[in-house]
Amino acid sequence: MNASEAERLARVTLNSVGEPGNLRLASTVAELGAETVLEALRERPDDLGHDLAARLRTADPARSLEAADKLGLRFVIPGDPEWPDALLDLGRCGPLHERGGIPLGLWLRGPLSVAEAARQAVAVVGSRSATTYGEGVAGDLSAGLARDGRTVISGAAFGIDQAAHRAALATRGPTVAVLACGADRVYPAAHKRLLDYIADVGVIVSEAPIGGAPTRIRFLARNRLIAALAQGTVVVEAAVRSGALNTASWAGALGRVVMGVPGPVTSEPSAGVHQLIRGRDALLVTRAEEVLEAVAPIGTHTLTDLREEEGLRDRLTAQERQVLDAVPVRHGAPAASIARTAGLAPAKTSAALSRLEDLGLVVGQGERWHLAAQVDESA
Amino acid sequence: MNASEAERLARVTLNSVGEPGNLRLASTVAELGAETVLEALRERPDDLGHDLAARLRTADPARSLEAADKLGLRFVIPGDPEWPDALLDLGRCGPLHERGGIPLGLWLRGPLSVAEAARQAVAVVGSRSATTYGEGVAGDLSAGLARDGRTVISGAAFGIDQAAHRAALATRGPTVAVLACGADRVYPAAHKRLLDYIADVGVIVSEAPIGGAPTRIRFLARNRLIAALAQGTVVVEAAVRSGALNTASWAGALGRVVMGVPGPVTSEPSAGVHQLIRGRDALLVTRAEEVLEAVAPIGTHTLTDLREEEGLRDRLTAQERQVLDAVPVRHGAPAASIARTAGLAPAKTSAALSRLEDLGLVVGQGERWHLAAQVDESA
Repeated sequence: MNASEAERLARVTLNSVGEPGNLRLASTVAELGAETVLEALRERPDDLGHDLAARLRTADPARSLEAADKLGLRFVIPGDPEWPDALLDLGRCGPLHERGGIPLGLWLRGPLSVAEAARQAVAVVGSRSATTYGEGVAGDLSAGLARDGRTVISGAAFGIDQAAHRAALATRGPTVAVLACGADRVYPAAHKRLLDYIADVGVIVSEAPIGGAPTRIRFLARNRLIAALAQGTVVVEAAVRSGALNTASWAGALGRVVMGVPGPVTSEPSAGVHQLIRGRDALLVTRAEEVLEAVAPIGTHTLTDLREEEGLRDRLTAQERQVLDAVPVRHGAPAASIARTAGLAPAKTSAALSRLEDLGLVVGQGERWHLAAQVDESA
Repeated sequence: MNASEAERLARVTLNSVGEPGNLRLASTVAELGAETVLEALRERPDDLGHDLAARLRTADPARSLEAADKLGLRFVIPGDPEWPDALLDLGRCGPLHERGGIPLGLWLRGPLSVAEAARQAVAVVGSRSATTYGEGVAGDLSAGLARDGRTVISGAAFGIDQAAHRAALATRGPTVAVLACGADRVYPAAHKRLLDYIADVGVIVSEAPIGGAPTRIRFLARNRLIAALAQGTVVVEAAVRSGALNTASWAGALGRVVMGVPGPVTSEPSAGVHQLIRGRDALLVTRAEEVLEAVAPIGTHTLTDLREEEGLRDRLTAQERQVLDAVPVRHGAPAASIARTAGLAPAKTSAALSRLEDLGLVVGQGERWHLAAQVDESA
């Protein structure tokens, strides 16, 4: 089902007058539709309308689409077959650095359907000033992902990004470059051949208007698209203030799997990744198989959680485990009956129950004990 | 308070006839005292008594203590001022690789009080076949810990262990070497100078009888002492089957802080550490300050858990957070009242509640909802 032409033209207009990731514009459009918003901005301008008035007067969506066509670009909006629905998750996510929201539309260059490509995709991102180690690992990972049929999504920047794209291309796997500048532009200039190659066999994606320059705001807005298009984001080398960590934050906020590749603790470009893993914001991964396991459609989080649960159980004494196994799932039982089931003395049982309660594994209500919810789930 | 001489002699005897980490012997002695157990083994031998009968006939504890004295060794048992009570935690821990239990006594060589040294101690362990990177990091970490007044505990082996001891010694910090062979022996032979130095300024600890050889069983038993004596264990490089991972398992089982230093994913000696961190069995650490934060007497686990909690909350949508904040801690409230508090439509509230329930953050009972225990605790 294609969206109406009027809606498409309105989105081209709004996309060219607003900045990518303007959360207010995005939310209003998501709620009311672009035509209505555009009309309101023109006829009853609020402060956003006033902000955009000048740009609105000169916007010519039909000419933009014509120009795009000549440049080999297309514009897709929600409802188009090529629109990746994964981006709709951005509508349920607060802003980061004041950027956010579902993009009004995407400019695309290249034969690959981004909707198709995003179905099984992993983002591989990292430092521009990467080390040989980092580029090597990014390449190995991406090649492994591509061999498994996954799309490798990245930002076409120096360092980790280009290593990821190149490895995917070398493996003849699908790859998506999401740019902060217009999809027709080449940034960085040194990556002209890389971007042309991606435009030949993969797809270049951008929210920025045709010819748009890569600004700081657009990089921040761009990062959310990388995170949203992929089922998981792997950070390979990122200094503590790297933009790749912004992408990781988006992935986390979107409920995607966030992964990090460790490196030597003496290497600055690994410090940001170590911070992510240390704070349990990212899962440590060392090879493509581990990434694939983590982004598996079912079970990723379950798997991780189960492991943590096992970790907790492993830390129990044999007696505590005996008692835990004797605690009923739901309706609860008095300590005396748990002691009988466990085959342990009442005093020992009570001591174990109170330690298990401290650990959040059992819940005491009045005289009765039952398993805490998470134990129940993992049992 | 010193233990009775008869108890001490009985423990010397049992220590010399039983193998370190014989859990059955350790538990019976912990329960009945060494004198009683020794008498029973001699007069009413069960199969353990039969196993040990030959050794029992030749045991001469007074002569052992005399020989020890000449070698500059002393024997400490529970109740002695120099006995480290941290080892008693081993009495509440199941066996690993069939080794376990509170040691019957410790042979000590060196001026440092092991009880004193264990009060603020970190174990730094790792691969024998360490890399230059690993030895460098182990040295930096240990020097940082020693500068902060922490005792560095390790096993005096090649690789990571020796780097840890050396750095502690170079910083004039206390260091404890726990050996699998007798405390009078030098193993590995190449570490004679290192061990002599530790015996001069630190302390060498062993459970094995005087002159005892370092056997596989004794290494496994030794690892539990390293883990138990320290508040936390840092693994710096460990291949996937490294003995250092056994020490880490003991530390985890004992409720001590388990930490791991990452390295290049291309480095085999880091693979075991990455596995620990990946499985959330170890906290990733990159420098001494992070180790110190993790082993701080209060708050380590709290800190980590809070972070995880925040991570989960961060992943919620704004609406879900609104709803979560409106759910009562204990007595529960019906969805309609939660919706009013949250200022959200009933349908949205119900949807949010069911997602929050899936995440284990709220519990629905009948018609009422309350916060899950762990949310309550971290609030």
